Amino acid sequence: MDAVNAANADLVPSYGADHFTRRLQTVASELFETEVCVYPVTTGTAANALALSQIAPPFGAVYCYEAAHIVTDECGAPEFFTGGARLIGLPSADGKIEPRRLAAAIALANEMGVHHAKPAAVSLTQATEWGTVYDLAHLSAVAAVAREHALPVHMDGARFANAVAHLRCTPAEATWKAGIDLLSLGATKNGALCAEAVVFFTPALARDFDRRRKRAGHLWSKMRFLSAQLLAYFHDELWLNNARRANSMARRLSQGLERVAGAKLLHPVDANEVFATLPEAIVAALQREGFGFYRWPWCAPENGVAIRLVTSYATRGEDVDAFIAAAERAARAANAR
Amino acid sequence: MDAVNAANADLVPSYGADHFTRRLQTVASELFETEVCVYPVTTGTAANALALSQIAPPFGAVYCYEAAHIVTDECGAPEFFTGGARLIGLPSADGKIEPRRLAAAIALANEMGVHHAKPAAVSLTQATEWGTVYDLAHLSAVAAVAREHALPVHMDGARFANAVAHLRCTPAEATWKAGIDLLSLGATKNGALCAEAVVFFTPALARDFDRRRKRAGHLWSKMRFLSAQLLAYFHDELWLNNARRANSMARRLSQGLERVAGAKLLHPVDANEVFATLPEAIVAALQREGFGFYRWPWCAPENGVAIRLVTSYATRGEDVDAFIAAAERAARAANAR
Amino acid sequence: MDAVNAANADLVPSYGADHFTRRLQTVASELFETEVCVYPVTTGTAANALALSQIAPPFGAVYCYEAAHIVTDECGAPEFFTGGARLIGLPSADGKIEPRRLAAAIALANEMGVHHAKPAAVSLTQATEWGTVYDLAHLSAVAAVAREHALPVHMDGARFANAVAHLRCTPAEATWKAGIDLLSLGATKNGALCAEAVVFFTPALARDFDRRRKRAGHLWSKMRFLSAQLLAYFHDELWLNNARRANSMARRLSQGLERVAGAKLLHPVDANEVFATLPEAIVAALQREGFGFYRWPWCAPENGVAIRLVTSYATRGEDVDAFIAAAERAARAANAR
Amino acid sequence: MDAVNAANADLVPSYGADHFTRRLQTVASELFETEVCVYPVTTGTAANALALSQIAPPFGAVYCYEAAHIVTDECGAPEFFTGGARLIGLPSADGKIEPRRLAAAIALANEMGVHHAKPAAVSLTQATEWGTVYDLAHLSAVAAVAREHALPVHMDGARFANAVAHLRCTPAEATWKAGIDLLSLGATKNGALCAEAVVFFTPALARDFDRRRKRAGHLWSKMRFLSAQLLAYFHDELWLNNARRANSMARRLSQGLERVAGAKLLHPVDANEVFATLPEAIVAALQREGFGFYRWPWCAPENGVAIRLVTSYATRGEDVDAFIAAAERAARAANAR
Repeated sequence: MDAVNAANADLVPSYGADHFTRRLQTVASELFETEVCVYPVTTGTAANALALSQIAPPFGAVYCYEAAHIVTDECGAPEFFTGGARLIGLPSADGKIEPRRLAAAIALANEMGVHHAKPAAVSLTQATEWGTVYDLAHLSAVAAVAREHALPVHMDGARFANAVAHLRCTPAEATWKAGIDLLSLGATKNGALCAEAVVFFTPALARDFDRRRKRAGHLWSKMRFLSAQLLAYFHDELWLNNARRANSMARRLSQGLERVAGAKLLHPVDANEVFATLPEAIVAALQREGFGFYRWPWCAPENGVAIRLVTSYATRGEDVDAFIAAAERAARAANAR
Repeated sequence: MDAVNAANADLVPSYGADHFTRRLQTVASELFETEVCVYPVTTGTAANALALSQIAPPFGAVYCYEAAHIVTDECGAPEFFTGGARLIGLPSADGKIEPRRLAAAIALANEMGVHHAKPAAVSLTQATEWGTVYDLAHLSAVAAVAREHALPVHMDGARFANAVAHLRCTPAEATWKAGIDLLSLGATKNGALCAEAVVFFTPALARDFDRRRKRAGHLWSKMRFLSAQLLAYFHDELWLNNARRANSMARRLSQGLERVAGAKLLHPVDANEVFATLPEAIVAALQREGFGFYRWPWCAPENGVAIRLVTSYATRGEDVDAFIAAAERAARAANAR
Repeated sequence: MDAVNAANADLVPSYGADHFTRRLQTVASELFETEVCVYPVTTGTAANALALSQIAPPFGAVYCYEAAHIVTDECGAPEFFTGGARLIGLPSADGKIEPRRLAAAIALANEMGVHHAKPAAVSLTQATEWGTVYDLAHLSAVAAVAREHALPVHMDGARFANAVAHLRCTPAEATWKAGIDLLSLGATKNGALCAEAVVFFTPALARDFDRRRKRAGHLWSKMRFLSAQLLAYFHDELWLNNARRANSMARRLSQGLERVAGAKLLHPVDANEVFATLPEAIVAALQREGFGFYRWPWCAPENGVAIRLVTSYATRGEDVDAFIAAAERAARAANAR
Repeated sequence: MDAVNAANADLVPSYGADHFTRRLQTVASELFETEVCVYPVTTGTAANALALSQIAPPFGAVYCYEAAHIVTDECGAPEFFTGGARLIGLPSADGKIEPRRLAAAIALANEMGVHHAKPAAVSLTQATEWGTVYDLAHLSAVAAVAREHALPVHMDGARFANAVAHLRCTPAEATWKAGIDLLSLGATKNGALCAEAVVFFTPALARDFDRRRKRAGHLWSKMRFLSAQLLAYFHDELWLNNARRANSMARRLSQGLERVAGAKLLHPVDANEVFATLPEAIVAALQREGFGFYRWPWCAPENGVAIRLVTSYATRGEDVDAFIAAAERAARAANAR
């Protein structure tokens, strides 16, 4: 917010020809230890869909996890921006693409030839939709299959900061050194007002991307307000510090949940999301007490209800503890009946 | 072919204003026992994609079987013609949509709201991609779920004739009386040179469809050559007689296969397709002998190879018998080793 | 900016379910004296393209001025969002659509029938691309032709505030009372950081618009930051006061230019833009002195250079006077040679 | 027709893997004296739109004559197939693109940068929409401007045969030797049932074109029926002989019209179309007598009515003479009043 206020003072050229946006290129290139092309946009949906439109032709297939955000939560934006490319969802237990499934899907498409969408790209989410984080070897293994078929690899990094914080590696190791060609870098969930970015690790891949952004209505005239957010985000490791706090709160939350009778974690808690199954009585009690979270429709456990809990840079330890205490009370009350 | 030759003699208005095309409207309306709008096109892909573009907005979801032809074999044509609508594939053992799975998928989408593609239409294939045929009660049950959510129902009738021949019902019973709103009617697989049609059972649904056909390059200037094929197709039950023959040859083939050691039928043989698993040695032998069929990539049996066999109006009993005889020889040879 | 800072304090529901966005509906409905549906977005290109996609089918024609912003400056966004609708540009001396030309163009299309894009909508710009303002009778005359053919009318109101300030009428009179169905309301050029909005005067027209916005990546998760800008914009007539100042500075500028030897105004100065022809020597001198403006490529005067000068809420009288003084100096220098 | 009948006898592989289609590649390569890639399709609209989609990105601009067939008569097919590219129409007196206007339009776009559609391709029509024919020097001059900006050049050859017959040059000289990169070759207007083709003179340009054709529903399963038409078309100069006859009938018609009082030719008659202005009384009389032609909406002469007359391979001298005689009778009748 301070950075946006500061940017307000300046009278600068419009449409991204300002010094904030120029500096962002330098800062991001230093951060990623290679010359990158950074295109700030407003939403994660825009970042993902624009990124995919750059690498998949209208008759192409994009391989991803079957319940990836691009599949379930973007109202068809990838199809819209690509002009009709097909998302081909691969099944997975933990949200991570399995290299052998990817290879099999590509082989099937190639066997079908002209009748089938043409293998065009791979998109993976880091941290995944289940709050798990690919380790670097897994990333490289997925990228290796893609490389074998000359498919570029996109990373949906809506929670990229949380993944890097978990992996304790450099941003470069987490991306292009592991074979990622372009990244949707999310900042909004991690503290920004409305800032995301498409980052190209291969500048040649970015050709004409500025036209795609413009014609999607995502080129701000007063771009400085967007670039300033990202500059502040990267300054002094703010992005990583925010993510570390969110991750540690998620760990605290998951450890607390393990003590609640009837609660069961659904996935390892690597980043800032906790997926758990709880008895309906506890879930209902927590919602009655005003805690805000989703009942998660993408899995249907036999006993109880699946819920998703998300922590952020603004989550406090006492908030987590209050949640756990309420869950334990509800559990006791349920057992007493 | 005779009909096409006859049409050549006439000098008639272009772009469908000819008397062949007008008569086709009448003939089809009689056949279906209601006033229909018929739009001839050249390929099944065009018929399906145009039909879907008429009922699904770009942000819509079309529910279908997960390995439907529109999903696997049309190179993204549905996404192209609809401007990016999403095909949501439902799992199924025999290629038929299960009403309860359809209802669950629609409910999930509605729960997700604006973030998800909007439920827009249902598309089912009759006969299915596995050569099975929906009975009328099953059709009605699918349509009932669709109706409850105000979704139109499209039937991909690439093998519509084979299905009607199997069901021994009227074309009306097989379609609008069972809740179908529009039909891709296939004739090419059943004897035509290049004739398919989109048939609307609710004329209001056809509004501006002529523009969609034109701008897809599917409005023939010499439309009479297309309409004449369909007139001949419907004349004197040619379409049904062709289908009956194809179906009966498929039955003969499946009965023969049941006698071949190691062969196993994968699905009931309702129409003119036979899916079977055979030992690799037999499959290889049959291909060496010049029989033309596909190894079927959409299922991977543990033992042996899945193959698809298709019969047609031109298949002769002796062709079938020769195939079975060759399979039996190969089976004996394999067992002797 | 204050409003954005204030919005930062609040913890509110995401994706527009916040109280800022709800209040915006009320405030806008009061302002326009009818129940409107307001959808905030980030850029004018997004507002225009989304608005057009709501009223023009992919096979539709949108009638507009031949050098309208949607034609020349949005990199094909209208075609992208509509799925390929055609913009049909009408010639005009002053940027305003002439009703008789509109009627003739629609008649021609109707005569062509299915071979031609279908008349679908009219889009006019207020204030126009030449800084002129339609009076209310002219608006109504355009809308009357549209109404006769059942075409909705869209207003590109990137400079809507300047037009209303010039017309001294109510926002209602300037829009729906004159036959406008939906409005792209611009605020960014008039003081906002990044706020525009699509305003529907007929709520039924807005059906499913939320999906279109979402799948274009224009649904902010932290929508309050966008809505807060528009609330502040409308508060205490800030929007009109800003526009009045800009308009008055443009008048001062145009009056000054009339005194510069060799300068010629190209259009009446109704809003905050001045288009003029100046001798090359003067234009070059002004640019050397650091004044920022465009040489205008859309007209090529025989003598001299066409330029566009834009004033804003932040333009000061002394800025204008300095520009005029510099122009006069350059004119004298040129004449002295 | 004979060729289609002959093709019916054969049992061949589907989807273009047949020997007719293979032979067509050879025959066309010989005809054009270079290795070409030929893709048969059904309609001229499909050929044009598919061709443009191969060379223009969704954010691209295609330069053409302002009343080109792709602009006026294809219901937005080019926008549909390209995913929203912009057709930029250049004014012209005779339907031919003027090189200097083309250069100016490209320069303007380049000056506008990211805000404008990106110059992507040039499309010209040969023979033109006004029945005139570019000479080879003119073609080369247009192509030279395109080449300077690295834009591929498409030729809409709906009446390509008529143009070649007029130019008395080789097909190679009329196309790639003059700088044409790809051609929509029309056969339907010149005798085929429904055959057109996209011809690539640079095979690399054809990459993935088969997917585009498939997903547009233009890949015939029984492709032999399409390829056989084109083989017959090229055999023994049938295509040129048909065109020569049509052209000579148009000349006879135009010479006759010059003798009709009140008639005025609008353009030189190079190919098989005659555009003329006639007094309303004559036009009405001719239509009453049953002659079939269009009143031409694209020009509005001050006196009289513009009409388009088209001759074909099937037009007989006596048909032409009867038309002229009727016109002369009507002219005398009108003068007598």
